[in-house]
Amino acid sequence: MSAALTRAPGANEPLPAPTLISLDAMGGDHGPPVVVGGIRDYIRRHGGEGVRFLLHGDEAAIRAEMTRLNVSADVCDVRHTDKKIASDEKPAQAMRRGKGSSLWNAIEAVKAGEAGAVVSAGNTGALMAISKLILRMAAPGLERPAIVASWPTLRGVTAVLDVGANIESDAEQLIEFAIMGEAFHRAVHGVDRPTVGILNVGSEDIKGHEEVREASRILREGGLGLNYHGFVEGDDIAKGTVDVVVTDGFTGNIALKTAEGVARFISTLLKEALTSTLQAKLGAVIAMPALKAMAQKIDPSAINGGPLLGLNGIVVKSHGGADAKGFGNAIRIAVDLARSDYMQTVGANLGRLGTVLESLPPVSASPREETVS
Amino acid sequence: MSAALTRAPGANEPLPAPTLISLDAMGGDHGPPVVVGGIRDYIRRHGGEGVRFLLHGDEAAIRAEMTRLNVSADVCDVRHTDKKIASDEKPAQAMRRGKGSSLWNAIEAVKAGEAGAVVSAGNTGALMAISKLILRMAAPGLERPAIVASWPTLRGVTAVLDVGANIESDAEQLIEFAIMGEAFHRAVHGVDRPTVGILNVGSEDIKGHEEVREASRILREGGLGLNYHGFVEGDDIAKGTVDVVVTDGFTGNIALKTAEGVARFISTLLKEALTSTLQAKLGAVIAMPALKAMAQKIDPSAINGGPLLGLNGIVVKSHGGADAKGFGNAIRIAVDLARSDYMQTVGANLGRLGTVLESLPPVSASPREETVS
Repeated sequence: MSAALTRAPGANEPLPAPTLISLDAMGGDHGPPVVVGGIRDYIRRHGGEGVRFLLHGDEAAIRAEMTRLNVSADVCDVRHTDKKIASDEKPAQAMRRGKGSSLWNAIEAVKAGEAGAVVSAGNTGALMAISKLILRMAAPGLERPAIVASWPTLRGVTAVLDVGANIESDAEQLIEFAIMGEAFHRAVHGVDRPTVGILNVGSEDIKGHEEVREASRILREGGLGLNYHGFVEGDDIAKGTVDVVVTDGFTGNIALKTAEGVARFISTLLKEALTSTLQAKLGAVIAMPALKAMAQKIDPSAINGGPLLGLNGIVVKSHGGADAKGFGNAIRIAVDLARSDYMQTVGANLGRLGTVLESLPPVSASPREETVS
Repeated sequence: MSAALTRAPGANEPLPAPTLISLDAMGGDHGPPVVVGGIRDYIRRHGGEGVRFLLHGDEAAIRAEMTRLNVSADVCDVRHTDKKIASDEKPAQAMRRGKGSSLWNAIEAVKAGEAGAVVSAGNTGALMAISKLILRMAAPGLERPAIVASWPTLRGVTAVLDVGANIESDAEQLIEFAIMGEAFHRAVHGVDRPTVGILNVGSEDIKGHEEVREASRILREGGLGLNYHGFVEGDDIAKGTVDVVVTDGFTGNIALKTAEGVARFISTLLKEALTSTLQAKLGAVIAMPALKAMAQKIDPSAINGGPLLGLNGIVVKSHGGADAKGFGNAIRIAVDLARSDYMQTVGANLGRLGTVLESLPPVSASPREETVS
């Protein structure tokens, strides 16, 4: 899907420098085996041409995995550090004590301009806090990085953000999420003009609270040039009604976890049903190839990798429990973002947002209806 | 489950008057066939002893259905009206023009003390607005009725509220939802001390925005006597971690619709998988009895019927597209609520809430952490 973004150099262009991806090799539940395994998986699936890796962590453990998994030293640099951040370390503590850790050093490589992106499966709170500290936010309105969830839908994948840190979001922040989510979706999923919707309790303009109605009005009238669809409801996410669903981090986080809970609930019922009787077991065995093909469509590894958007640099969070295939997918997202014009597009659009906000007429006293039908 | 609440009269008590349930016979997509069918279904499943029905709407159409479905005139009174509220009528318009309609008259019967509860499959906005106009809210802090969703879980059914009208809810409203949801769950599901959780983005006390943290503190310290569990996350809903999940109407509505979308997404994938090849079809046919039994566990008809809580009277909303079995379940909920001490418990607890709020020490300046792990 992202082939168009890999941009083979034209005849007159010089060969581009390789894309360097900085990796926190010690993060997550598994550390080096999954990180090095992720490199191998990424190269196997995507070729890995023009990509190099910079691994931060326990050099001996990393090199042992490289040998075991037959990952060439030609594509990997290793920078040793003994220090790592624990999975349960609080963000404030991680910021105070994290300097020199694998996570810290991995982000520093992006700040220094050495790496094009960083991937870590470490503690989300620590990753977010240290990324913000080292890289800083890309716009004054942004308080915390937004986390994107890639949501499997009937039509492909929809980006939902924020699913994390921004518990309360005003209209301006919601529009910033729209700008960043749109550029992300184009860079990673190769969609030319991704459609954007704001999550609400109804599709009419008068539904919802002030923040979503104001954000919707600005996206509709403000000339930001996004392909704005309007409001969408919860069931539109899995339908794939739009490419990018924008919401505050409280609602987004609850929607995501609720969905995970429902998926697990149905899969538990299904497993129980298909093992409940001898006859059901027989049917399940016969239908197994089709059921396995279905399970692949909703394989969490295939959608692993949530970028933290809004920073001056590309940071991709891999799930702490992800396997090598999952980590490989997070690497793919980092590479696609690093090679695209994501940072420039977002920078330009965030810059225009200030002008748009000033030029808009004040909110009209529109009627408000809070009941849902 | 609710057998304990049907309370057979003791030897010294007089036989109680029958419970009269007022029905809007013209509401929903189907009108009389489903409403009269719902009565038949309710009687068939639950006996219907001591329950009578008061049907409002087109008398000829209602009586024709009673004849067709063999529902005895002994248990039904019919009050004719030509007028009905359209499914797309706006709440404000319905309030102005709705007097004398089947929906209006059905609610009036509760207000007059004639009926113990009302069930309507009509337009939610109109039902909510007219219920509030006629019955009034039960406490000054309540602005709009809260809608309860009965959510199938791995451990049974969890009540989630508000999933509807209260777009922004402060701490006091969230506690009112807790009080009402707890009493509802006890009355309808026969659980003696239902556990209550507040929906949040993490389980620690410092997570989330001020409203949820304040509500949680009051439920924990305020001596309201609820069986308060603490914060729950989105995936706890389908796990059945608690009996009652409390949230604002914006988050609750989005969580509910997101869950419906995911359930539909998975069921679509499953159907596609099980019809994708001849072999898969064969397996599906063999496993069909087990798959059907599973489908029954998540049958929407079995959980249809969402009460509008917080009114001076019991109003149950049936889904507009519900079938007779679904409408029958909404009737069951109305009967269980009308026969329980739901109204008294809620009244007493809401009364105590004012005292609790006054007696609590002010909020301490607790640290706040918005990142999620």
